[in-house]
Amino acid sequence: MRAGVLHPDLTVTTETRRSPEPGPGDVTVAVRAVGVCGSDTHYLRHGRIGEYVVRDPLVLGHEAAGVVVAVGDGVDRARIGERVSIEPQRPDPTTPESKRGDYHLCPRMRFYATPPVDGAFAEFVTIGADFAHPVPPEVSDEAAALFEPLSVGIAAMRKAEVAAGGSVLIAGAGPIGLMVAQVARASGLTRIVVSEPDEQRRLRARDFGATTVITPGTEIERVDAFVDASGVAGAVREGLSRVRPGGRVILVGMGADTMELPISLIQNRELVVTGVFRYANTWPTALALARTGAVDLDAMVTARFGLDELAAALDADRIPGNIKAVVYPSISSYEQNSDDDVETDTTRPEGTRR
Amino acid sequence: MRAGVLHPDLTVTTETRRSPEPGPGDVTVAVRAVGVCGSDTHYLRHGRIGEYVVRDPLVLGHEAAGVVVAVGDGVDRARIGERVSIEPQRPDPTTPESKRGDYHLCPRMRFYATPPVDGAFAEFVTIGADFAHPVPPEVSDEAAALFEPLSVGIAAMRKAEVAAGGSVLIAGAGPIGLMVAQVARASGLTRIVVSEPDEQRRLRARDFGATTVITPGTEIERVDAFVDASGVAGAVREGLSRVRPGGRVILVGMGADTMELPISLIQNRELVVTGVFRYANTWPTALALARTGAVDLDAMVTARFGLDELAAALDADRIPGNIKAVVYPSISSYEQNSDDDVETDTTRPEGTRR
Amino acid sequence: MRAGVLHPDLTVTTETRRSPEPGPGDVTVAVRAVGVCGSDTHYLRHGRIGEYVVRDPLVLGHEAAGVVVAVGDGVDRARIGERVSIEPQRPDPTTPESKRGDYHLCPRMRFYATPPVDGAFAEFVTIGADFAHPVPPEVSDEAAALFEPLSVGIAAMRKAEVAAGGSVLIAGAGPIGLMVAQVARASGLTRIVVSEPDEQRRLRARDFGATTVITPGTEIERVDAFVDASGVAGAVREGLSRVRPGGRVILVGMGADTMELPISLIQNRELVVTGVFRYANTWPTALALARTGAVDLDAMVTARFGLDELAAALDADRIPGNIKAVVYPSISSYEQNSDDDVETDTTRPEGTRR
Amino acid sequence: MRAGVLHPDLTVTTETRRSPEPGPGDVTVAVRAVGVCGSDTHYLRHGRIGEYVVRDPLVLGHEAAGVVVAVGDGVDRARIGERVSIEPQRPDPTTPESKRGDYHLCPRMRFYATPPVDGAFAEFVTIGADFAHPVPPEVSDEAAALFEPLSVGIAAMRKAEVAAGGSVLIAGAGPIGLMVAQVARASGLTRIVVSEPDEQRRLRARDFGATTVITPGTEIERVDAFVDASGVAGAVREGLSRVRPGGRVILVGMGADTMELPISLIQNRELVVTGVFRYANTWPTALALARTGAVDLDAMVTARFGLDELAAALDADRIPGNIKAVVYPSISSYEQNSDDDVETDTTRPEGTRR
Repeated sequence: MRAGVLHPDLTVTTETRRSPEPGPGDVTVAVRAVGVCGSDTHYLRHGRIGEYVVRDPLVLGHEAAGVVVAVGDGVDRARIGERVSIEPQRPDPTTPESKRGDYHLCPRMRFYATPPVDGAFAEFVTIGADFAHPVPPEVSDEAAALFEPLSVGIAAMRKAEVAAGGSVLIAGAGPIGLMVAQVARASGLTRIVVSEPDEQRRLRARDFGATTVITPGTEIERVDAFVDASGVAGAVREGLSRVRPGGRVILVGMGADTMELPISLIQNRELVVTGVFRYANTWPTALALARTGAVDLDAMVTARFGLDELAAALDADRIPGNIKAVVYPSISSYEQNSDDDVETDTTRPEGTRR
Repeated sequence: MRAGVLHPDLTVTTETRRSPEPGPGDVTVAVRAVGVCGSDTHYLRHGRIGEYVVRDPLVLGHEAAGVVVAVGDGVDRARIGERVSIEPQRPDPTTPESKRGDYHLCPRMRFYATPPVDGAFAEFVTIGADFAHPVPPEVSDEAAALFEPLSVGIAAMRKAEVAAGGSVLIAGAGPIGLMVAQVARASGLTRIVVSEPDEQRRLRARDFGATTVITPGTEIERVDAFVDASGVAGAVREGLSRVRPGGRVILVGMGADTMELPISLIQNRELVVTGVFRYANTWPTALALARTGAVDLDAMVTARFGLDELAAALDADRIPGNIKAVVYPSISSYEQNSDDDVETDTTRPEGTRR
Repeated sequence: MRAGVLHPDLTVTTETRRSPEPGPGDVTVAVRAVGVCGSDTHYLRHGRIGEYVVRDPLVLGHEAAGVVVAVGDGVDRARIGERVSIEPQRPDPTTPESKRGDYHLCPRMRFYATPPVDGAFAEFVTIGADFAHPVPPEVSDEAAALFEPLSVGIAAMRKAEVAAGGSVLIAGAGPIGLMVAQVARASGLTRIVVSEPDEQRRLRARDFGATTVITPGTEIERVDAFVDASGVAGAVREGLSRVRPGGRVILVGMGADTMELPISLIQNRELVVTGVFRYANTWPTALALARTGAVDLDAMVTARFGLDELAAALDADRIPGNIKAVVYPSISSYEQNSDDDVETDTTRPEGTRR
Repeated sequence: MRAGVLHPDLTVTTETRRSPEPGPGDVTVAVRAVGVCGSDTHYLRHGRIGEYVVRDPLVLGHEAAGVVVAVGDGVDRARIGERVSIEPQRPDPTTPESKRGDYHLCPRMRFYATPPVDGAFAEFVTIGADFAHPVPPEVSDEAAALFEPLSVGIAAMRKAEVAAGGSVLIAGAGPIGLMVAQVARASGLTRIVVSEPDEQRRLRARDFGATTVITPGTEIERVDAFVDASGVAGAVREGLSRVRPGGRVILVGMGADTMELPISLIQNRELVVTGVFRYANTWPTALALARTGAVDLDAMVTARFGLDELAAALDADRIPGNIKAVVYPSISSYEQNSDDDVETDTTRPEGTRR
């Protein structure tokens, strides 16, 4: 199969690799669409995220959807042909974290596109059968791929613990900030304030749920919760000051390893500060929200690329107005194929057992 | 002032009474609109609800909105003239229940229209200033009156603990069932099943949030929670059997004092069963939902009456298609005044200080 | 190996069976001690519990401890020789229930001694390696076996949500009632009321945590929570009436399938009623409590039997003063061996691979 | 009456002031014993805590117990003569925070010894009747005074959400750290690690619940929660690194307004960080723990002073081995009276109405 590979020297190539075989309990998925995440771009530019370093060639990509083409032992063969959204994690179900429902915090996690685990910018991938979630026809491949960043928004709003009629401040109108805003809107929050310095991004936030958009530094009425999707220390400090006593602060944006935080404010208002790393048990929610139109994922896709255009896809955040780029691993160049019916080849990959 | 009074012999009269004076911390409200609740009707027909017995003449009505016309000691005089929705409870803030936030469970509660405490089918009422919640112009008097039954729906869905994308079964499409459905929709639940034997009521549930309507006995997929708004034992038993393991069951409908319940089912699925009696801290949520259009309260008003028509208003549940009757205590007969601009007299009631 | 078998005609025999082999991820345990549970006795006397019917010969017993003697694929061989307490459940880790941390509610559960799954009154059993919890030397075999009923007490008190300084009423001073009382004491509850009609059982409850013992029908001050360990409808109704507004009611005792319950009381006080079926993530807690002496499991063992005495062991609840009988599957007759050093043979069972 | 007063120039004097009269709903308490808190000492040395500045003469002291000597309107006269522990806060019960049970976060709070509200180093104080909690004879005056710092420990352990059998790391073995340790022990935690650089303080932590004592920097196994009672940034950062994924971090110690915190660690482990400012609904718990001996408050009192020795009392933290100093406002010099029966004059203070 063909795969897009990031090398330790930060070059990107398309290579031919052996197709993965499904282990017991796994499925093999022919990948149709993969969203580009800021973390993919970060690996391209810096070769690392925190302690995770690209020491060997790595396949990036963890926002993926496709079609099941093979199943491992113990998996119902009837799943072959099923369209699925991939939850890109392989926790060990026997750890205490997994057994108490926090499988995303499993210390033995293997997560797509996190060294040394390969991701989904490839024609075929394998995943645990229960992490390949069926999607119905009314959900597009691109939307199914974006269940992953949507899950970050779902996880953030679960932790925010704000019910219908409540309020939230979101810092940052990038893809994650917009996902948070969409989930906030779907959850019935009636005041959704998005703070974003860039005017274009700020204005489009209204299309994805913001009831008010502001520039950083603008005074607002207290909110029930603050979700940081910016990773910027100043935004975090400002957001903390806007939360009502007892309210919650959810740090989603990745930035510096440490931040100077107003401890006395956290104490005096008994704010509850936590972070979102990954997510657990979010796909059923993502599916319910996407298929009913409660969130709009298709509208977030602003650029499309073939596998040979991966380097450009990873740089798409530099395109003005870009929200989310999607890569089609089964085709070389998106532009050249865009008039065709883009349909992944769902026949059995070479070397894949049944 | 004039008030509609229920007598122990179950007759209803309009009487002239001394207007209430606001105590310290209170406001006096000129009542504009009062919803008729099933409990009002129940008092009319049976003279009691459980342990509460109409032994002396009683003013019914606890779903009320109006205009502040006087304030007691310690209350800002600027509130005079303010349109308010009345939260019809007077808890004692010093009890353990009140201090831990469950003021609706306060054992020293005085609640409107619950013997011996008079309610709101009267020209003027008093209430604690913090239980007279300001409403903006975009919320009508009738909608403001219906914050009370809406609060029951909010309280039920809070206890149901189902987030956006989840599912609920609601038994009964009366006013409370419809309120629950509206709050479920506003909260982003994507599967809202309403079970109701009456076809007309069943069909209209779709207008208030139901995504599926069924007749009792219909098999459905498991739901995250079940809210009973029927008070019927058979409906409760059926609803219990539809809930997923670990899901929640909220009993709102009032019916028999006891019910035969499937204990082994509650145990085997570890269902969590609880009830809603009243509500606490719901008015801010009700306001946010109503003013943004997330719930539609005006559409629930199907009949209107003046104070001298109170007996008919209390019987309005027998009108086909009725959802919610509203009484205008400041006018004698709604029909005769309906061409006029129905406007409550907000001048100071006789005998009210300040 | 030898196993004690219950037949559909309700006779009990000792048979020779093929020793079980550990599957992938499993361990084989040479069983040292097995507690007798009321459910074992119920199967003996009635041949069924609810929907679970003894249609084929069944090995009972699910409160077990022993020594690892073989491991399946993927399990560290260093575990051979390890003393373990067995958590007798095999959930499917891929179901939604398991993935959200409620693996005990997994619909594909295979649980020891529940038809058609055999239990632990046998020389050897297999279990998932992560459900064979290591125990240190200071915990006896008998105590390790009783981690299972202790887990029921832990699960009940978790659901009761009462913190240190709080109060609980427990109905029933059988083994489960005493376990609940012990966990309540270990959790710092300062008022632990046990209601029990039998005087001998009532008095001994004081040794296991009760601060007050009463006969059913005795008036008491309100409690924060009520745990039923009796399965008696009258006890449940009485218990419900003793709980403070907003308090919790946990139904642990198994009795009739249905019960007439005071619905209006549940509603008016907004009580939260739920049940305990099994337990999840309790073994680490059980170990911490047992090894530090916060609970005393050894003191609960009042009778001991060999495998050929299984029928008598299952009837031990008829012995006055009995709390918990323990069976030693590796010896025929406990009395004849009681002077010897009772030590399970931990050599590899015949037919076990590795 | 006589009162110890801190002046803006940081001198302390004993003055004669008019005794306070109880307002409606209040009681007047003849103060018997008042604990010295670190915040009292901080005011003495710095003249401020954060935004609270001593601009006018201020009576310090907020850990107080005494005897009711007068009652205001609406309070049962039978309370006169009652021994009480004072919860030193006066929230406004009509604010949203109070109504949802977080009265300690009430923005209109008036709290003892917080400018401009006077505290309890005085012969008489007033407080809301429901904030004067009766204590039984088996609880000493000193213990009753220390319900206040005990409440901080209770509030911290509530937020830590660790059940019996769990573990906690506590940084700092001052009075608050020891209170947290005592509550942790009373709650059945089986691993209570106290980190403290001072050897004498470290060792005595064992007497108050620590199962392990360490010097800062010592590696330990992961804990379920971390409670900082030191206010030292290094201790907070170290503590954060010791908490298991999903565990909780409670910041109680007051230190710098801001701290450099490891955000990526909070995110990657999804730690939940919050603070304790004050407490709500803790007195019933404090009483239950103290009267049953689950916590030992008397053993924490290491020095006693009369009102004229207030300056020395406020400096008692400099006495080696000091844990908690207690001031007796009704006597001038503790030493001179220590042979006498120290009994507060409970007759009606001058100028106090009944």
